[in-house]
Amino acid sequence: MTATGPITPECSSPLADHSHIHMAHGGGGTLMHRLIEEVFLSKLTSTPATDQHDAAIVNANGARLAFTTDSYVVQPLFFPGGCIGSLAIHGTVNDLAMSGARPMVLSVGFILEEGFAIEKLNRIVDSMALAAKDAGVQIVTGDTKVVDKGKGDGVYINTAGIGVIEHKLDIAPKSVRPGDVIIVNGDIGRHGIAIMAQREGLEFETTIESDSASVTASVQKLLDAGIDVHCMRDLTRGGLASAVNEIASAAGVKIELDEQAIPVREDVQSACEILGFDPLCVACEGRFISFIPEREAEAALGCLHADPGSERARIIGSVSVTKMPLVTLKTRIGTSRIVDMLSGEQLPRIC
Amino acid sequence: MTATGPITPECSSPLADHSHIHMAHGGGGTLMHRLIEEVFLSKLTSTPATDQHDAAIVNANGARLAFTTDSYVVQPLFFPGGCIGSLAIHGTVNDLAMSGARPMVLSVGFILEEGFAIEKLNRIVDSMALAAKDAGVQIVTGDTKVVDKGKGDGVYINTAGIGVIEHKLDIAPKSVRPGDVIIVNGDIGRHGIAIMAQREGLEFETTIESDSASVTASVQKLLDAGIDVHCMRDLTRGGLASAVNEIASAAGVKIELDEQAIPVREDVQSACEILGFDPLCVACEGRFISFIPEREAEAALGCLHADPGSERARIIGSVSVTKMPLVTLKTRIGTSRIVDMLSGEQLPRIC
Repeated sequence: MTATGPITPECSSPLADHSHIHMAHGGGGTLMHRLIEEVFLSKLTSTPATDQHDAAIVNANGARLAFTTDSYVVQPLFFPGGCIGSLAIHGTVNDLAMSGARPMVLSVGFILEEGFAIEKLNRIVDSMALAAKDAGVQIVTGDTKVVDKGKGDGVYINTAGIGVIEHKLDIAPKSVRPGDVIIVNGDIGRHGIAIMAQREGLEFETTIESDSASVTASVQKLLDAGIDVHCMRDLTRGGLASAVNEIASAAGVKIELDEQAIPVREDVQSACEILGFDPLCVACEGRFISFIPEREAEAALGCLHADPGSERARIIGSVSVTKMPLVTLKTRIGTSRIVDMLSGEQLPRIC
Repeated sequence: MTATGPITPECSSPLADHSHIHMAHGGGGTLMHRLIEEVFLSKLTSTPATDQHDAAIVNANGARLAFTTDSYVVQPLFFPGGCIGSLAIHGTVNDLAMSGARPMVLSVGFILEEGFAIEKLNRIVDSMALAAKDAGVQIVTGDTKVVDKGKGDGVYINTAGIGVIEHKLDIAPKSVRPGDVIIVNGDIGRHGIAIMAQREGLEFETTIESDSASVTASVQKLLDAGIDVHCMRDLTRGGLASAVNEIASAAGVKIELDEQAIPVREDVQSACEILGFDPLCVACEGRFISFIPEREAEAALGCLHADPGSERARIIGSVSVTKMPLVTLKTRIGTSRIVDMLSGEQLPRIC
């Protein structure tokens, strides 16, 4: 007898051992959501799962703040287009931006493995300094821990961030409405494929660089223009598929994506085909979707196109009424299929 | 040839390899301070090293906030008097309290090792929920990452916290003045010895329990009474010796400690003698020192004694003018010795 309950056919899968942590528990899919809901949310917070967003909103003596945290465990530490340091800045400022907050300050916690080269640490810290400067955010506090050789993986980084919310919008999954369009700010899947190629020593005709970048400037353009942004979500672990599924569930809506409209670079598409990946599930680190009332879609696209990071923004789908939350994809050949979240993730440790 | 420079006698010590991370870089002593100053502070922040405190002070739309972070890598994960979960709450709320802030919200980031038992995770999370409730702080946001088996140590936890500052004091090392007395809120060294005993399987006549606790209620009593608190510092990595040395340097003062006045429990004293430890350098996780003008010392002691966590608070030293920052100890036999920071730490991974 184990604590995992009665034996069912599902138990023959390695993922069916619910008594121990699996890599898939960190993958952004259904297993991670289950862990978060059953272990963390139920015990630690009073926020219902459906209100969960990239950052928490906090009122502090009259100031409306966004607060978020992420740990970074990416392997390899250095990859085309970035490293764990720049990623740790981009990921956290982007989470703040997704709440419509202007990122203000960050904390940084390092967990260093005994024996790690200080020269590498210096390169990582340099890239953090540069990324923070670009994103207009200050690093104001930090912490350093060292763990025994063999108990880490070079370096793990946690960043937490505070942003200020300077508008009256309620940017959150629950604000998504039938009639909204979904805009993505650029081509998807480059971060995950860049990591995978580096990790596995794969060579494609061109080097695929991660899309890791701060999206704060793009978001600020939408807000400054007074666009009625309903929701934003960055496409990290679990990719576009996880993002739209989470939001469809939280808002109780149907989301229809148009495959032909979703920008995927040709080299990324080829790599996905070789590796057997679905680009909809591959992580990005500089891409986000925004939910905008259709009447403001053109204005929103205008704002995004004015920012170099979002020059190729386009509409990739729409929101409609449904009895049951659902995501569908209109394929290139005109059929329609359901888009699910993966249970785990195609690629572990991409952030 | 290596990158560590010319060969000097110092190079024969394992700590003299400045090109790689050593356990001592995380120990709270001079090596950690050097790493922080040379790698992190110089590149990442504009705050001078002497202004560094347990938390950063941030102004956000008119609100005066304290912001701090700590990662927790303690081994063993469970120890007499607590576990990594309660410790991760206590450590971060205490850092906020040391700035005179009322802790408000926390973020939690978990780095879980593949194969970690979910039953253990549940116990850790339960202890976090309890500790947060006791400290009057809400956990509002979090993150989960999973790393491959052998690349972690069960679980690492990062907590970051925001507190609000509701008084006009400038509680910081630079506010310490000659004429201040130093008050400690209880006996020192229990956390470090509890961890060491558990880790090494040592048995003493009694089980020494960690002092891990939130000091927020004690601090709030001082502030509510309007005591002119100049500085506070919790006695974590590096213990009392590191705390007073850091403050003496930052304030440019001489600190004189009175050995006879420093409370050390008999069983802790015996354990230190057996293990060859100096209790002044052993970490606590529920102990702090406050620097108070002498005329307010009695009132401050009255406040502290009214809180169960600080019933045995007492004056252990004083601050005076000096040409060069210095910490001395008046020993039990009446002589005086200089108290230095250790270069590393007696015990690694105590928090």
